[in-house]
Amino acid sequence: MRAVRFASFGEPADVLTIENIPAPQTGPGQVLVRVQVRPINPSDLFVIRGLYGILPRLPAVPGFEGAGVIVGVGEGVTDRTIGQTVIPMGAAGLWQEYVVVPAARTIPVPATIGDRQAATALINPATAWLMLTDTLRVEPGEWVLQNAANSIVGRHVIRLAQRLGFRTINVVRRREVMDDLRTLGADDIICEQDENVVARVHALTGGKGVRYALDSVGGASGARLAASLAMGGTMLVYGAIAGEPLTIHLGTLLFRSATIRGWWLSHWLQTATPEQAQDLFTTLFGLIADGTLHTPVAAEYDLGDVREAVIAAEHKTRPGKVLLVG
Amino acid sequence: MRAVRFASFGEPADVLTIENIPAPQTGPGQVLVRVQVRPINPSDLFVIRGLYGILPRLPAVPGFEGAGVIVGVGEGVTDRTIGQTVIPMGAAGLWQEYVVVPAARTIPVPATIGDRQAATALINPATAWLMLTDTLRVEPGEWVLQNAANSIVGRHVIRLAQRLGFRTINVVRRREVMDDLRTLGADDIICEQDENVVARVHALTGGKGVRYALDSVGGASGARLAASLAMGGTMLVYGAIAGEPLTIHLGTLLFRSATIRGWWLSHWLQTATPEQAQDLFTTLFGLIADGTLHTPVAAEYDLGDVREAVIAAEHKTRPGKVLLVG
Repeated sequence: MRAVRFASFGEPADVLTIENIPAPQTGPGQVLVRVQVRPINPSDLFVIRGLYGILPRLPAVPGFEGAGVIVGVGEGVTDRTIGQTVIPMGAAGLWQEYVVVPAARTIPVPATIGDRQAATALINPATAWLMLTDTLRVEPGEWVLQNAANSIVGRHVIRLAQRLGFRTINVVRRREVMDDLRTLGADDIICEQDENVVARVHALTGGKGVRYALDSVGGASGARLAASLAMGGTMLVYGAIAGEPLTIHLGTLLFRSATIRGWWLSHWLQTATPEQAQDLFTTLFGLIADGTLHTPVAAEYDLGDVREAVIAAEHKTRPGKVLLVG
Repeated sequence: MRAVRFASFGEPADVLTIENIPAPQTGPGQVLVRVQVRPINPSDLFVIRGLYGILPRLPAVPGFEGAGVIVGVGEGVTDRTIGQTVIPMGAAGLWQEYVVVPAARTIPVPATIGDRQAATALINPATAWLMLTDTLRVEPGEWVLQNAANSIVGRHVIRLAQRLGFRTINVVRRREVMDDLRTLGADDIICEQDENVVARVHALTGGKGVRYALDSVGGASGARLAASLAMGGTMLVYGAIAGEPLTIHLGTLLFRSATIRGWWLSHWLQTATPEQAQDLFTTLFGLIADGTLHTPVAAEYDLGDVREAVIAAEHKTRPGKVLLVG
């Protein structure tokens, strides 16, 4: 079977190769999945560059997310059948044609969800949903401030907030995306190159600041979000797009008793029971099926064109995922 | 009566004056306190410099902490009597001879507590106690990592940890204080100029890092504490001695799901009921009376020598509070 691999950490377009390796075999309790669609996520590229929280032994196959069809069932597996579309949860190495995973770690996908939406249902929708409803437990009517609002997670946050009755203040880098986010349902949008984020947040919140902020950028952008927190407010840091540390002025933390907290989906996935995971995905599949959580597709590439695909994923001009298919 | 005042924010030794102003009068529900002893705390100096979270209208009298004797009782006050030694809680302006405060905001001091220990019972002991037992709820056997371990709060943390069964890792700037802290009961001591704090913490904790850290410094010292946190660990930031922002590498936050949280005693005091405050001080007075929480006195100055006193408070060579008396 074809597999994307890397034998050293480095620039994805330089270190990724396509190789032919033997397809894996199922053991007891496992299923064999023919993977069909895989998004290229920032976390995949961080791993390939050697900059992620958990790194694989080399050579390794990248890919945390994807959807496929069960084509083989191991001994003792009674609740999964050949032909079922599933999402392997908490798996690594999905940028190849076949993977073997424990049956209990696969999420069956209902027929109402197309395979493109299924392949992108795990990381971004679960991140947006769990941060808002499980970790922060945002109350209806509250403001949520976020940067990178035009990212897929950012867009999911806007749609979920509308659905759940929160209000969003959305920080973006480029003016051009503002109309699009307004159409999506953003309550307020701030272009951080043109406006003072802290001043605008304070104006919108009657001088109080926001109780909740979501930072996926870090650096100066994350610091502006932190400085916009209300007394007792919380900022979750779930990404590091800027690649720069967060500089927090101590007055921000101290005199507002503010909380800055790292948030990593892997922890949730590692500690969730199969029932908790199934419940989460039942909810997410409902929100995907009714169009609340729609992931746009920016481009599709064959698995064999992975080098072009990773370049496209970092230089795309329209929102959406770059997918690896085949 | 004599009062220390400042009419503009600036260097304490430059802007503080001693003035004669009329003594205040009690209203209903209030008591008149003849203040006798007041420590000079870092928070007092931050206020005078205009760098604190809440700043007074000028001209103002500094002083968040002190002890005195009730010399007048307003209408309707039945649970306080003339001659009682009390701590005014949540009051500002204690660097004068008399203050008027609501009776419900005074904490009667038992006779077993001398007036020097009473005058320093509010801010530092309550900070150490509440951070460990109320906010973090540290379990017996756990490690607590702190910097500025030779400060008064730092020393209270060491003594409370011993009493409650926690273990402390204490970061100091100067080698000379290490013996003293060992005698006090510090489990481990790291001089941050000589040793790699993160490496030492990881060695002590079997590679896991600490679940709890207390930062009162910020800057590079606070960043080293943050980088020493275990998966899911929490660092409380309760001071800013370095006067520098905290730079947090996002990997520290993200991949360890770490929490960095500002902690300010004022919030607790503002929201505590009189019963909660009395319960807290009953506990603290017990720990002061049995010697667990002893505050050393570095020097005493008459209220009229406040300029010399504030200079001494910032340049003292031995641990302990500089007190204003009279």
